[in-house]
Amino acid sequence: MLTLDYANCFADRIGPSHGLDPALLDPTGDVARGIATLTQKLTSTRGKGWERWRELAFEPMRTEHLSAVRAAAKGCEGRFDTMVVLGIGGSALGNIALQSALNPATHNLLDASVRKGPRMFVVDNVDPTYFGGVLDFCASQPGGLKRTLFNVISKSGETAETAAQFMVIRDRLKALMGKDHGANVVAVTDPRQGTMRRICEREGYVTLPVPDGVGGRFSVLSPVGLFAAAMCGIDIESLLQGAADMDKTCSSQELTANPAAMLAFLLVELGQSKGKTNHVLMPYANSLYLLADWYRQLWAESLGKHKDLKGNTVFAGFTPIKALGTTDQHSQVQLYREGPNDKVLGMVEVETFDRDVAIPAGLGVEAIAYLEGTSMSSLLAAEKRATEYAFVESQRPNFTIRFPRIDAYHVGQFINMWQITTAYAGLLLGIDAYDQPAVELGKQATFGLMGRAGYESFKTAVDKALGGKGRTIGG
Amino acid sequence: MLTLDYANCFADRIGPSHGLDPALLDPTGDVARGIATLTQKLTSTRGKGWERWRELAFEPMRTEHLSAVRAAAKGCEGRFDTMVVLGIGGSALGNIALQSALNPATHNLLDASVRKGPRMFVVDNVDPTYFGGVLDFCASQPGGLKRTLFNVISKSGETAETAAQFMVIRDRLKALMGKDHGANVVAVTDPRQGTMRRICEREGYVTLPVPDGVGGRFSVLSPVGLFAAAMCGIDIESLLQGAADMDKTCSSQELTANPAAMLAFLLVELGQSKGKTNHVLMPYANSLYLLADWYRQLWAESLGKHKDLKGNTVFAGFTPIKALGTTDQHSQVQLYREGPNDKVLGMVEVETFDRDVAIPAGLGVEAIAYLEGTSMSSLLAAEKRATEYAFVESQRPNFTIRFPRIDAYHVGQFINMWQITTAYAGLLLGIDAYDQPAVELGKQATFGLMGRAGYESFKTAVDKALGGKGRTIGG
Repeated sequence: MLTLDYANCFADRIGPSHGLDPALLDPTGDVARGIATLTQKLTSTRGKGWERWRELAFEPMRTEHLSAVRAAAKGCEGRFDTMVVLGIGGSALGNIALQSALNPATHNLLDASVRKGPRMFVVDNVDPTYFGGVLDFCASQPGGLKRTLFNVISKSGETAETAAQFMVIRDRLKALMGKDHGANVVAVTDPRQGTMRRICEREGYVTLPVPDGVGGRFSVLSPVGLFAAAMCGIDIESLLQGAADMDKTCSSQELTANPAAMLAFLLVELGQSKGKTNHVLMPYANSLYLLADWYRQLWAESLGKHKDLKGNTVFAGFTPIKALGTTDQHSQVQLYREGPNDKVLGMVEVETFDRDVAIPAGLGVEAIAYLEGTSMSSLLAAEKRATEYAFVESQRPNFTIRFPRIDAYHVGQFINMWQITTAYAGLLLGIDAYDQPAVELGKQATFGLMGRAGYESFKTAVDKALGGKGRTIGG
Repeated sequence: MLTLDYANCFADRIGPSHGLDPALLDPTGDVARGIATLTQKLTSTRGKGWERWRELAFEPMRTEHLSAVRAAAKGCEGRFDTMVVLGIGGSALGNIALQSALNPATHNLLDASVRKGPRMFVVDNVDPTYFGGVLDFCASQPGGLKRTLFNVISKSGETAETAAQFMVIRDRLKALMGKDHGANVVAVTDPRQGTMRRICEREGYVTLPVPDGVGGRFSVLSPVGLFAAAMCGIDIESLLQGAADMDKTCSSQELTANPAAMLAFLLVELGQSKGKTNHVLMPYANSLYLLADWYRQLWAESLGKHKDLKGNTVFAGFTPIKALGTTDQHSQVQLYREGPNDKVLGMVEVETFDRDVAIPAGLGVEAIAYLEGTSMSSLLAAEKRATEYAFVESQRPNFTIRFPRIDAYHVGQFINMWQITTAYAGLLLGIDAYDQPAVELGKQATFGLMGRAGYESFKTAVDKALGGKGRTIGG
């Protein structure tokens, strides 16, 4: 089980100006009773509406998805050297997080004989240099694009970036393989309707479902994340088991036994009563760093809202920030300790790495002799504890999430803990954690600028808003 | 020349609650006169004390460094398939930025016949899984570690992470090559003194200088960044020429002709008078994304200070945040538009990419037919403009830095613009932009926890501060 250590959020560690009053944790107090009520509420809504994600790790979806994903992966077995995920936002960030957490950083460089599954690219942008470079690389390998699998992920099929990517690869595959090109595409999309569904049926692609009621940022434990994971040898059953076990822990009505409720309470309370509106997530492990990008979307898009459920203007939300220990000690810690005290610093540490690197004796130079005979894991652990201490000394609220080890089971726990934390935080803020109305305007303006029929007025509006007096230097 | 478009920081675009009064730009007003005074001050201190970095792109350092770096690179020619930079913070972030900006994302995957220079890893952490994995990969290649160059970068040699990395690779190389192991090490360090200097002299390593008066975060245009760049085919002379030309532009006493002065004024003024204390840098180009990590260190560590130059408590500084367009439109833009209006959103765009990817006709699906016959670069440009518009509609201050194209010359401009901006911002905030006192405590506590003689009291202090009542869930 992951551990949440939250002592450094309280006044007895960091003083009353920036730390919370420990009395807030009184099991008979308002906070604890309020949380118990929210837990009941979440129990009553679980699996319904936009909270269907809570059932992804449980039957019947669990077995349905595991079976479908494994069948699709089996159908691809031995046929591909490279796999490219086409998607953006919730269709990409979970995949990036799983691959980087659970496969080596050198995965794409390893020889096929030792690599688990195909090389993997998750191409979540329409930068032509990047996208073109990845396609060129795939085409340059033995077998070329015929040995490349494209996993297109889009519930609707209308996300502009993913649609553009898909149109490019479909054209290239068709030129190469004609009608058979569908053998190189696995689509994850709406099981019944939408643009991508219609395309898949017309072209005969293998498809996997984005289940109803599962929004993009809550979809990593669905086929959206499971298929690419399975292709690259990740133990997807353990991933779901970790999520399921964490769900049970986070169903406790007792605040001090429920890590999701506690995290949500701490972050919202520190945000609202102490002005800590920037929420840093700083893993002390390279492989967990990109989980922080997945968390960034979850936390920002779910909670960043300017209306509460009653329609009042609130400008809610916190700014999630990713950092990496020890690396960012040499970049951000000066600011985190001496700059504005506007952050909660979430650290992530790993008890046992799957390997260690001994720091050998023999150099014999006094100033650094203390390192001889130790190991990188012990240095990493010492730096984390030293930094935690330095934060406490500067009265900066912080907490630690501890992984016993990095594996699919504990990554599943981590993911679901944050998803459930987000659900609690939405309730505490009184906002809808499941919509994203503010991204619509940019999409419509893009349509207008790209000449989509019916969106001409948006082009006019853009030109007007960005016209008039310009102010530039250079060029 | 890069363009800075800053119109969207002003009230005539985004309203008076969040935008600055255009009257502030009056060429005869207080702001313009204050900036002119600061420009004079910076002219008088350039090249002195900790502002020696300002002379890196000029003679005599320019030719000295170019010659030394080229000679060192020539000495390595043909001998290495892989290069590993060992360093952290300012010794790593500039190298990561240059490599990702100016070499393809697939660099390490390319065949030696098309790759410019060796494979490149910048290993800026002591995560044992990551570090061990990279070493294993190097060792597994034909020729093994004998074909691997280690570029250790540390001014003092006492940075714990870099020292640990160095001790590991020295041991492995010695076991393999004995006294000849120095042929696989190029060190960038203090030219005269310090622990690493003494080691280099004892072991006979090739060295390049970290010049006096050039701090880590201002060192990318010194051999710290130039050597790895030269090894991988980056045009280091153009890089310095871009920096030199930008220096001249940023020496203008006229606020509206000096992009560094303008950026510093806008960011400090929006921070102090409008509460925009989070500063986002969001390139619309994958290859420029990691320049934002370099910027994060520069901005956070230089300006995050709790004392001004007179010793008053100030808690100065802004929180730099990196984001990527279009990717983060699907992750952060909901928050950036509807959440707390506490940010300045800096966008970076590229006028002409070095290639484009056509979006072909032929799919024939109405909802996405508007994309047919367009291109990824035009979609990227439309999304950027649409997002800029959406920010303006939400009264969010924002600016755009435009690259005519991505090349060494313009990357040099970008780097030096931000360095000079930081110098101005330090003066405007009245703080010392060149120290980093708050990182010391964590270093000392690490020494204590690692058992370094003389630091026992820090271990005691850590145990005391983090002892007492614990609060945890799970484990």
